[in-house]
Amino acid sequence: MSQPPTERTRVRRSAKRGIYDKETVYAIVDAAYVGTVAYAAAGKVRQIPMAIWREGDALYIHGSTASGLMRDLAAGAEACIAVTHLDGLVLARSAFHHSMNYRSVVLYGKGREVVEAEAKERALDAFMNHLTPGRLSEVRPPTAQELKGTMVLAFPLDEASAKIRTGGPIDDEEDYKLPVWAGQVPLKLVTGEPLPDDRLKSGTATPAYLEGLPHEREAALSTT
Amino acid sequence: MSQPPTERTRVRRSAKRGIYDKETVYAIVDAAYVGTVAYAAAGKVRQIPMAIWREGDALYIHGSTASGLMRDLAAGAEACIAVTHLDGLVLARSAFHHSMNYRSVVLYGKGREVVEAEAKERALDAFMNHLTPGRLSEVRPPTAQELKGTMVLAFPLDEASAKIRTGGPIDDEEDYKLPVWAGQVPLKLVTGEPLPDDRLKSGTATPAYLEGLPHEREAALSTT
Repeated sequence: MSQPPTERTRVRRSAKRGIYDKETVYAIVDAAYVGTVAYAAAGKVRQIPMAIWREGDALYIHGSTASGLMRDLAAGAEACIAVTHLDGLVLARSAFHHSMNYRSVVLYGKGREVVEAEAKERALDAFMNHLTPGRLSEVRPPTAQELKGTMVLAFPLDEASAKIRTGGPIDDEEDYKLPVWAGQVPLKLVTGEPLPDDRLKSGTATPAYLEGLPHEREAALSTT
Repeated sequence: MSQPPTERTRVRRSAKRGIYDKETVYAIVDAAYVGTVAYAAAGKVRQIPMAIWREGDALYIHGSTASGLMRDLAAGAEACIAVTHLDGLVLARSAFHHSMNYRSVVLYGKGREVVEAEAKERALDAFMNHLTPGRLSEVRPPTAQELKGTMVLAFPLDEASAKIRTGGPIDDEEDYKLPVWAGQVPLKLVTGEPLPDDRLKSGTATPAYLEGLPHEREAALSTT
């Protein structure tokens, strides 16, 4: 019988599982709407949740050109960006071995400002396609002024790594005899019924891409 | 008619909304299972998603005493911890005014290690009560060895601030005439059907505190 894992070996196992192919990293990013962007400003670590999306080999963020964070990052401050999906609570027989299932990506790197107007518009189009596929052709596109006021930064996903925990609890061998319920409580981010705006122009139909809601956000990865 | 808000005025409005009472900050933390913990190690900003909970005026994290992050934070590295709930996509008539609804807390501060064994056990009990209320009395409590190998850090919530966005899109006045669907797509973290562990001792009943699942995580704040 193998030695039951301790908190420490589990950490080592997580570290082993932490080396993933790009496809896995990309799938975790693509399943997310937000990430947390951390960096140091004047020696002080800050972080802020921001909308994220991916195009090709880069993770993108956008913000006002007046934003201190965007300016600092455009000027070359190194960022650390995390994307986290919480997939469930893991209830063990012992308090100590309780855990959570999750998929996360952490990337380190500097942002490259997307300066050229057409490239910037293409990146923002990719953001719209990420938020709500099918909507891009319907909305009023950005004006030159709006584009000018928006900064887009691309962070290469080369230095990104994924961490994933799936499955049930791993208890100490002697605890399996305890009559304590153990298992997983899955957690999922679910889309609800769309709420039309009060000032919707009368006769505006609910678009096809919003039909079928509410539904569960499709898991980008099998968690079995 | 009032001037429609620009990206910049919306940021200012968010900033105004950013000053909240403790009750609001606590409710956002209490509704979360994870936060992202950022700090600088050897001049490099790192962040990692971690389980969080609150007790009194502090946000808590725990980890192995062998963890570099826990050691650095115990040694006094200033942390920035974010807690984020994504509540919905906000679909505007213009690409530019798309947004998201969310509740977030960002705290700055140094962690205080909970050293005394009884206090540490009490903090970990609070964690269990946060994860799954009602479960604490059933599980095998931590051994002296497990407690010794676990570090608990408390971060005062004094320097924490909340940010909340709720409601529908705010478009430029001239865009309200467009026949574009606009509104909100709510997002919620939902608890699924509990999955019993393969090695559950036969005859172990599903505990009462897991009955009634799946259900939506109760929103700690009204978002209307």
